[in-house]
Amino acid sequence: MTPSDSTHVVIMAGGVGSRLWPISTPDHPKQFIDVLGVGRTMIQLTFDRFLPVCDPTHFWVVTGEKYLDMVREQLPSIPLDQILLEPMGRNTAPCISYACRKIAAKYPGANVAVTPSDALVLQKEKFVSVIDEALHAVDGTDRIVTVGIVPTRPETGYGYICSTSTVKDTLCKVSEFKEKPDLETARKYLEAGNYFWNAGIFVWAAETVNKEIALHAPSISAVMDRIAPSFYTEGERAALREFFPQCEKISIDYAVMEKSPNIYTIASDLGWSDLGTWGSVGEHIRKDGAGNSIVGSDVHIYNTGNCIIHTEGSEVGRVVVDSLDGYIVSLKGGKLLICPIANEQRIREYSGS
Amino acid sequence: MTPSDSTHVVIMAGGVGSRLWPISTPDHPKQFIDVLGVGRTMIQLTFDRFLPVCDPTHFWVVTGEKYLDMVREQLPSIPLDQILLEPMGRNTAPCISYACRKIAAKYPGANVAVTPSDALVLQKEKFVSVIDEALHAVDGTDRIVTVGIVPTRPETGYGYICSTSTVKDTLCKVSEFKEKPDLETARKYLEAGNYFWNAGIFVWAAETVNKEIALHAPSISAVMDRIAPSFYTEGERAALREFFPQCEKISIDYAVMEKSPNIYTIASDLGWSDLGTWGSVGEHIRKDGAGNSIVGSDVHIYNTGNCIIHTEGSEVGRVVVDSLDGYIVSLKGGKLLICPIANEQRIREYSGS
Repeated sequence: MTPSDSTHVVIMAGGVGSRLWPISTPDHPKQFIDVLGVGRTMIQLTFDRFLPVCDPTHFWVVTGEKYLDMVREQLPSIPLDQILLEPMGRNTAPCISYACRKIAAKYPGANVAVTPSDALVLQKEKFVSVIDEALHAVDGTDRIVTVGIVPTRPETGYGYICSTSTVKDTLCKVSEFKEKPDLETARKYLEAGNYFWNAGIFVWAAETVNKEIALHAPSISAVMDRIAPSFYTEGERAALREFFPQCEKISIDYAVMEKSPNIYTIASDLGWSDLGTWGSVGEHIRKDGAGNSIVGSDVHIYNTGNCIIHTEGSEVGRVVVDSLDGYIVSLKGGKLLICPIANEQRIREYSGS
Repeated sequence: MTPSDSTHVVIMAGGVGSRLWPISTPDHPKQFIDVLGVGRTMIQLTFDRFLPVCDPTHFWVVTGEKYLDMVREQLPSIPLDQILLEPMGRNTAPCISYACRKIAAKYPGANVAVTPSDALVLQKEKFVSVIDEALHAVDGTDRIVTVGIVPTRPETGYGYICSTSTVKDTLCKVSEFKEKPDLETARKYLEAGNYFWNAGIFVWAAETVNKEIALHAPSISAVMDRIAPSFYTEGERAALREFFPQCEKISIDYAVMEKSPNIYTIASDLGWSDLGTWGSVGEHIRKDGAGNSIVGSDVHIYNTGNCIIHTEGSEVGRVVVDSLDGYIVSLKGGKLLICPIANEQRIREYSGS
């Protein structure tokens, strides 16, 4: 596949990943970490995933100011002026609006894939074909294509896309978006077959984004009108700092997806996970015979099973775990967590944040 | 109490404390660590303990070459040429012989208290009176006084001193030394009342040490004869490196105590512990209401009891422990141990040493 000149990818990398403490912290969040111990960080894996459809020079990252150095270090091929720095996080709608206004200003015919930076996709080739199909579907139209993930369990931690069809791997109209359901509802979704996990990946023309936001979130559009004259100038940073914080804090789902009539989905089995919890991380690290998922080069276990043991960083030395079953043990930057996997919902409390 | 000019203290600080991994490592062993979280390291506590009977300028430390900087940093008032550096550990007899030969060369009438550097004594005032009594008892005589600890349990991890008397706090003749007993024997010792723990603290005139070693361990004495001409000269280090390794590797107990007829003991309740195991460390750290012994400034526990949680070092951050009962959790220098206290005898294996 040859990347199209009109294709751009926007990687949203402003999150703090608080549910993966202590490996993920506000100073060094999840997307900049090699969560799975595979030698690439989550944002690098995201970049890699889109390379077949997008030239390296057409990638954009939107992130917090303090993460600039990490982005430059981890994704050195992205041009510096395409690393967009939010003065503060305002959720995804202002983030996407800023990126797409800026892209459209320089590349009027751009088609844009917007993606989180911290999710996992196991089916990489299939993913590429889905994105490619989506890019063709939006080219020259005002369609918005969301990537739907065929659910494998009645997950209550994700939002759902209700498609007009149960057909997979094909462009279908979306009838509505559903917030995180309760378990009973999630089971019904699973049974119905036309509900798909919302991976937060959107494909559309940059102009479509800007029109939709002007229509459905005019206050954000108005803020961008103030910033736009400074795009690609030395004054951009100052303008951002002055005006960006005025943006309403709102997700693109609320701001646009739930309101626009032009939403489509391509639903696929992509082996996708948001790696949002320790449990989901553990599921994607190869287990030993005793059910342990271990990341770390000097970990020694005795009489230990069903644990997630994650040690990261050059400062970590020998780690010995004896007689634990079903625990998370995570050591990073001098911070240590030992807790039952079953208690992972308490990690925000544990982290003291 | 005013220290006598003739009193010297020799602190033996060459051990590696392998049973307290990971806080104690060959690079930073137990005696140089604030094991109990009291703000002083074990060797500092040892120094403090003897200060009432010995002028700071009459302390001597025998240790490994690589520990020189730690000794200087932790005990700055000890004169540099009284920090004696063994090229390699040869157990306690060569260590004590070297120190006492050197002391006697400069201070012919010296009386010497020899002590380990890594034990705990809770009854500090009583300890001082015992040492003072011992110093008086050896002055101008060829007596050797060992400090006996009245046993509080049938401990199988210590050697015992068999006294000719059950009387405490008074100088008594020793009939023999006993190696670590089995449990049944230890129970008999406890019941008999004239068996005391051997704390490895010996008080004697420097000349007595040298005579006893010449008599019972002549090969060590012969090595010291080769080194002695260089004492207090620039050539001492080279002579030590050349000859000291030829010393037989033997403890003072084997070399002298079990052979000499001049051994006495003063047995006392001193609140003594060698802090040789994690369990003994845990017993001497104040427990919270759930039986946890915690050292560390940023430790947060949930549903956790009967644990020893020991975190040490400026690099250690927030530590969270949830749902452990009866475990050791120790984090230092990037090394982490999590194991049941009941498995502490496996720590040498865990440490990979």
